[in-house]
Amino acid sequence: MTESTKAIVAKIEAQLIADRRDFHRYAESGWEEFRTASLVARRLSDLGYQVLAGRQVIRDEDRMGLPPAEVLEASWQRAVAQGGDREYLDLLRGGFTGVVGILDHGTGPTVGVRCDMDSLAMAESQSEAHRPVQEGFVSVNENAAHTCGHDAHTALGLGLARVLMTLKSSIQGRVKLIFQPAEEGVRGAKSMVSAGVLDDVDYLLGLHVFTGWTLGEIHPGMGGFAATEKFDVLFTGVPAHAGGNPQEGQNALLAAAVAVLNLYAISRHGDGATRVNVGQMQAGISRNVIPPHAQLVAETRGANSELSRYMHDQAVRVLEAAAEMYGCDLEIRPMGGAPSAESDDQLAGRVARVAGEMGGFRILEPTESGGSEDLAYMMQRVQERGGQATSIGLGADLYGISQDARVGRDAVLNAHTPEFDIDERALGVAVELLTRVVLDIVGV
Amino acid sequence: MTESTKAIVAKIEAQLIADRRDFHRYAESGWEEFRTASLVARRLSDLGYQVLAGRQVIRDEDRMGLPPAEVLEASWQRAVAQGGDREYLDLLRGGFTGVVGILDHGTGPTVGVRCDMDSLAMAESQSEAHRPVQEGFVSVNENAAHTCGHDAHTALGLGLARVLMTLKSSIQGRVKLIFQPAEEGVRGAKSMVSAGVLDDVDYLLGLHVFTGWTLGEIHPGMGGFAATEKFDVLFTGVPAHAGGNPQEGQNALLAAAVAVLNLYAISRHGDGATRVNVGQMQAGISRNVIPPHAQLVAETRGANSELSRYMHDQAVRVLEAAAEMYGCDLEIRPMGGAPSAESDDQLAGRVARVAGEMGGFRILEPTESGGSEDLAYMMQRVQERGGQATSIGLGADLYGISQDARVGRDAVLNAHTPEFDIDERALGVAVELLTRVVLDIVGV
Amino acid sequence: MTESTKAIVAKIEAQLIADRRDFHRYAESGWEEFRTASLVARRLSDLGYQVLAGRQVIRDEDRMGLPPAEVLEASWQRAVAQGGDREYLDLLRGGFTGVVGILDHGTGPTVGVRCDMDSLAMAESQSEAHRPVQEGFVSVNENAAHTCGHDAHTALGLGLARVLMTLKSSIQGRVKLIFQPAEEGVRGAKSMVSAGVLDDVDYLLGLHVFTGWTLGEIHPGMGGFAATEKFDVLFTGVPAHAGGNPQEGQNALLAAAVAVLNLYAISRHGDGATRVNVGQMQAGISRNVIPPHAQLVAETRGANSELSRYMHDQAVRVLEAAAEMYGCDLEIRPMGGAPSAESDDQLAGRVARVAGEMGGFRILEPTESGGSEDLAYMMQRVQERGGQATSIGLGADLYGISQDARVGRDAVLNAHTPEFDIDERALGVAVELLTRVVLDIVGV
Amino acid sequence: MTESTKAIVAKIEAQLIADRRDFHRYAESGWEEFRTASLVARRLSDLGYQVLAGRQVIRDEDRMGLPPAEVLEASWQRAVAQGGDREYLDLLRGGFTGVVGILDHGTGPTVGVRCDMDSLAMAESQSEAHRPVQEGFVSVNENAAHTCGHDAHTALGLGLARVLMTLKSSIQGRVKLIFQPAEEGVRGAKSMVSAGVLDDVDYLLGLHVFTGWTLGEIHPGMGGFAATEKFDVLFTGVPAHAGGNPQEGQNALLAAAVAVLNLYAISRHGDGATRVNVGQMQAGISRNVIPPHAQLVAETRGANSELSRYMHDQAVRVLEAAAEMYGCDLEIRPMGGAPSAESDDQLAGRVARVAGEMGGFRILEPTESGGSEDLAYMMQRVQERGGQATSIGLGADLYGISQDARVGRDAVLNAHTPEFDIDERALGVAVELLTRVVLDIVGV
Repeated sequence: MTESTKAIVAKIEAQLIADRRDFHRYAESGWEEFRTASLVARRLSDLGYQVLAGRQVIRDEDRMGLPPAEVLEASWQRAVAQGGDREYLDLLRGGFTGVVGILDHGTGPTVGVRCDMDSLAMAESQSEAHRPVQEGFVSVNENAAHTCGHDAHTALGLGLARVLMTLKSSIQGRVKLIFQPAEEGVRGAKSMVSAGVLDDVDYLLGLHVFTGWTLGEIHPGMGGFAATEKFDVLFTGVPAHAGGNPQEGQNALLAAAVAVLNLYAISRHGDGATRVNVGQMQAGISRNVIPPHAQLVAETRGANSELSRYMHDQAVRVLEAAAEMYGCDLEIRPMGGAPSAESDDQLAGRVARVAGEMGGFRILEPTESGGSEDLAYMMQRVQERGGQATSIGLGADLYGISQDARVGRDAVLNAHTPEFDIDERALGVAVELLTRVVLDIVGV
Repeated sequence: MTESTKAIVAKIEAQLIADRRDFHRYAESGWEEFRTASLVARRLSDLGYQVLAGRQVIRDEDRMGLPPAEVLEASWQRAVAQGGDREYLDLLRGGFTGVVGILDHGTGPTVGVRCDMDSLAMAESQSEAHRPVQEGFVSVNENAAHTCGHDAHTALGLGLARVLMTLKSSIQGRVKLIFQPAEEGVRGAKSMVSAGVLDDVDYLLGLHVFTGWTLGEIHPGMGGFAATEKFDVLFTGVPAHAGGNPQEGQNALLAAAVAVLNLYAISRHGDGATRVNVGQMQAGISRNVIPPHAQLVAETRGANSELSRYMHDQAVRVLEAAAEMYGCDLEIRPMGGAPSAESDDQLAGRVARVAGEMGGFRILEPTESGGSEDLAYMMQRVQERGGQATSIGLGADLYGISQDARVGRDAVLNAHTPEFDIDERALGVAVELLTRVVLDIVGV
Repeated sequence: MTESTKAIVAKIEAQLIADRRDFHRYAESGWEEFRTASLVARRLSDLGYQVLAGRQVIRDEDRMGLPPAEVLEASWQRAVAQGGDREYLDLLRGGFTGVVGILDHGTGPTVGVRCDMDSLAMAESQSEAHRPVQEGFVSVNENAAHTCGHDAHTALGLGLARVLMTLKSSIQGRVKLIFQPAEEGVRGAKSMVSAGVLDDVDYLLGLHVFTGWTLGEIHPGMGGFAATEKFDVLFTGVPAHAGGNPQEGQNALLAAAVAVLNLYAISRHGDGATRVNVGQMQAGISRNVIPPHAQLVAETRGANSELSRYMHDQAVRVLEAAAEMYGCDLEIRPMGGAPSAESDDQLAGRVARVAGEMGGFRILEPTESGGSEDLAYMMQRVQERGGQATSIGLGADLYGISQDARVGRDAVLNAHTPEFDIDERALGVAVELLTRVVLDIVGV
Repeated sequence: MTESTKAIVAKIEAQLIADRRDFHRYAESGWEEFRTASLVARRLSDLGYQVLAGRQVIRDEDRMGLPPAEVLEASWQRAVAQGGDREYLDLLRGGFTGVVGILDHGTGPTVGVRCDMDSLAMAESQSEAHRPVQEGFVSVNENAAHTCGHDAHTALGLGLARVLMTLKSSIQGRVKLIFQPAEEGVRGAKSMVSAGVLDDVDYLLGLHVFTGWTLGEIHPGMGGFAATEKFDVLFTGVPAHAGGNPQEGQNALLAAAVAVLNLYAISRHGDGATRVNVGQMQAGISRNVIPPHAQLVAETRGANSELSRYMHDQAVRVLEAAAEMYGCDLEIRPMGGAPSAESDDQLAGRVARVAGEMGGFRILEPTESGGSEDLAYMMQRVQERGGQATSIGLGADLYGISQDARVGRDAVLNAHTPEFDIDERALGVAVELLTRVVLDIVGV
């Protein structure tokens, strides 16, 4: 059977690359993946999967960091214009851009595979040295670029769907292919979890391609994802002429400045690492007017969910007091968040074993990621129910960086730079590996 | 003679209003008054004035708060398209938008009259209730609106030019009509002073129309203009991933927050009133990145120039220390400034007397203005040389606000609101009054 | 009559100096003036005055900045040991150290004269160059020294009492000699006002000796006393080991630091001068423990009572928010306070006239004092009732400083230095002047 | 041989307790251990040890957190009066209170044993429930109490000296008994290390008794000692009258407040735990004077020496900038410090094995201590030279706390409370254990 898997995958390799490039070209950022998701749904349906989409798999109230309604509508119209599937687009309208495909065959456990579809909200490199420019698949959408590899994840998810359907007869159980929106900013997973999408999943797999590791390098069970809360803060005060009657103002910029300083001064915690950052601030209207509003873009993190909660609670206390100190109204808007998560050793070990059987891999020692992952919400739900989950990291560095050159590289920042690109051979490798792992679990 | 002045002015009243509406419609903000200034120069020249313009009356190095070169160029091109005078436009190109018209007749002192030409950089009201909309002279230029009455000052300056030329034979001395750019933000006067424009002026008059006072209400010698410094501040740090390696960042937003807080905490001064304001702040690039830059838009003021210098010196000390505290580079850009100034009692008394002779005025008790005036630079130079200067405030409230309703109104903020408009009858009143005062000084 | 006044005063000059030195030697600070006040009461009684003392003239609840009960008791015991009057000491026990002496003769208005009795709570100079050391009247009491001249005020009040009693037959009206405690820190006057002591006073005189002005220099009507609030602040948090479990602490020192910074950042006010100062801070228990408490010693001021209230309201808002920000309990203890006050021109003019008649004075132009005076509470009450009040400043510089040397001297700080001493000839001058002014009002 | 060790120790048990109570009664805090150290030196000498003391084992320049000279002298005089050994007292005078005893027998490695002698600078409980009160050995010295068990360490060090001398013929090598001053505040070890005391030590043992663990509970190799810097900070500004001329002051309290806030805001570090604490602050002189000085008592920590250095460097940057921001002079005084340290597994394993052979122990899982240890300086030097070091924790809880009750107890704070006391049976256990470990290394 393993022979045939490799052969089957080989046949779809061109399709994988074409798909990835198509999604890359029509990059759509979080909650705006209308074209991408509609095409995913159409394809899954055509392959014979049971397809759930839109509000069937997204709980409205738990969507975090949602763009304004008019932005969502403009992006939806763009998706219509760029060849999205009209039937599914109607289901997704308004920012319900999740899709689930189910393959049900015989009695057995349920395996979920998470693929994320959103791009970053940034401009892609227009340099002639950038392969997507050279080969014509650079993003055509403003402020949207696949600089984190989710185009690859979407493409390989469709490839996996096709291969598994081919091998359907070998399966005893269920496969759930979960295409999620808004992974960036850890905004989307929560709404799929609360919609119940993970409630019947016994084994959950997530795979992320990484630059910084070359093809064949693999992490079977990444972990140490920090728990995090993302939030925007709005202080609203009262304007006044700064020369004539400054005392009539309520200075929102000053409130925000006090808040910023004291956020960073939140006490370190004896139980482990914590973080806080105010990444952006915008305040005021004119040089000679007491600033009537100030906006902060902030986040807190903790090595585990309890530490994250500690940081968030402290942050709220600081923000409330700062607002009160300067007579301002305060609004704290949740914009994203994720719990901490660890891969299950047992499932990670299974992935490692299957990779060993498949050959061509070098298993790296898992290191602390430092960052956060929206997948953590899904892992948490599966693990709560007694299931197992793992997050697989797969090397896809385009330029064959040597072991030595890698020292000091910061893969995470790399991933969000305008020049990001991947080794597309990783697509086939990923599809074969995931197929083998799925069959290792639900194969007959 | 006084009879004929009133009669002469009556004849140009329609022109005054037409001019004011033309300048209003093609509002141009500070250093971009290309169309306005070129038409002023053309008109003065046609009337027989000796005209100086551009670098003849503006010292390059002392221009403050200058827009970027490309903005200046775009506005210049716009002025070409909107009917500016090509000959003078060439002299003004690059933001040298000052004009001086000289009438020289016989031997006698020199009287200067300052008129400012710039609009605010803001949007004008598009409400149907707004008269400029109703009558078709609302600003057609983006982010430029005459909401402080400088359109009126420019128009009445041209009217004054015309009337004085008619009365030339009655004059023994010189009249200098000084049309200055960039009064808003107190940015333009300094460069005209250092170009020597005021060096031969014995008497200086400036007139400002005000809402909040009705037609006929007048301040013959306003004072208490606070000395002020306007400046922008740029902190430049180092970005880093806020989760992975926050210690590698140098946090510019934090430096700016510390600076803001400590700017407001600068010690009060036993010798008089001081002010500081940070009107705007923009910082950071992304939620999860240590912010590598932060920009402040700030000002300091003092009841006199010494107090203003104290505040600015302290502010610089705070800013430098805040930058050092967070390992940031610091740039402080001067964006404007004015000394304090007081009108000369003698000249103000003369204006009051002439107004009394002319009739129809109610002289208000001068009150502290609280604000700053770019005219102060010019007043200072004239007074240093032993001359006299006064700033005249003239009521022009459109809606005939009663004495009682005025209580609690903040004329300064009013002046900068999108709905600002004036009683155009004030144009003729101003021309007649200024004509009479000029003749009282240099008339035979 | 004026001849006789000078002659009468001349006879008591030795007694004036002896009294001043006795009070100086047994200096007692605010609310602890047990010996001083008991001897004052005894002397007034012996002279034939109706004497009110203790709770008769002090309202318990309005005493501000009271020392702890055990301190009061120890000082009371000390007064017993140092020869206080036992009868009156019983009335004063517990810190009710006010005394009023009343001379009632015929029908006429009531003149009040305020004398303050408290020393500073500081050590006196022990230098051999210090005259009180040389001549044996340096303070024998720890942390108590008459470095502001209240010893002189008490002595001259007794001298005035004696002279007026001699001249009793010339009086038609009432004289109220008001000996108040705790003027330093503006803590005592309020409690005498609320006890009704000023409710029948038509004319109020207060006199203060000043170094920096030589003998004969006089201010007949000082003013510009700033309104002020004095208060202590206690933040109480929770200690924790700073290495092991810092997050378990609630950091009172940090709360206090945030408060301090933001107190100074309270917005300046367009209506006039404001001040805030945190003069002292004590916090924490050990290097490696999160500080569980922090104490601030603070004050706010305003050019008038409204501005003072603005500052105090803002300060309270800042303090409450700072406490909340760091999870601390907050206690704000009023420690003193005074309204603003201005002398009445009419009464000051009368003093100036009488001084002119008496001869030997040089009247100085009143300047803004900048400081606060507890007398202001009493002035306010008298003026509210339609009466007149004035604060007289009298030169008493020991060293005959010339006019030139005076430039730049800060009399207020001088007054509170360990080496403070006065020209005792001012005592007789003051008694004669006050006698003459009193008789000018209620003399027949 | 093991039998005889237990027997030998049994014979000195009464002496151990008597010694511990004697040192307890005459508690001496850091750098003032004159009586204690002189008696230690005398006893070692009498037992036949080669004794080094004073400047022979303490490098002057590396003493940290030294009390003022007059305090040292007063304590030295007290030691004379309390029966210190006159001969050795002369060597120790001025705060050179270190002693080393050397036993040299045959050829072999050198084993060092560190004992610390200083008390805390705090008052001991005077409660009748406190055993030292009941049994008459409560501290008679003001502000000095053995509330951390160093009295026990000194006593058991002397017991160990006696037992090893008895067993001298069984030894092939050298034993160095190192009695150090000023362990509290991590101030003393550095000066012994730089004097060369550790330069020939191949194996280093340190033992600390702990409450919170009952008799028989043991940690053979404690670790995770945080690196730390202890320092005092003095800001010196300029005073001014807060009402009259606040602008003439340079506000040291404000500088300190800004420093405090920004010290806590120093960025967390991606490589591990960091800490900062400002444990105390004292500032200012009077309510109405701009505070001219402020003192901070502070510390930084890091999980390793590099992290500690990062924190200290950042702290210095913050302090310097805060001083500059408010025109203050700055002095940073090092008051203590220690590197991080880890016990060597090999030596800890040897201790564990010997403990197992001896019997009666329960080996606890080493946990992170969270705190810092002056021993770390010595461990570092030994390990740098290729030697091995370990820090042994030994249970000595007086009250036999059960395993359950222990949960949530904070042993470190416990150790520094006024009621601290120990189970004296631990003295004999410690002597036997250390004797056996020493013989395991250098025994024949």
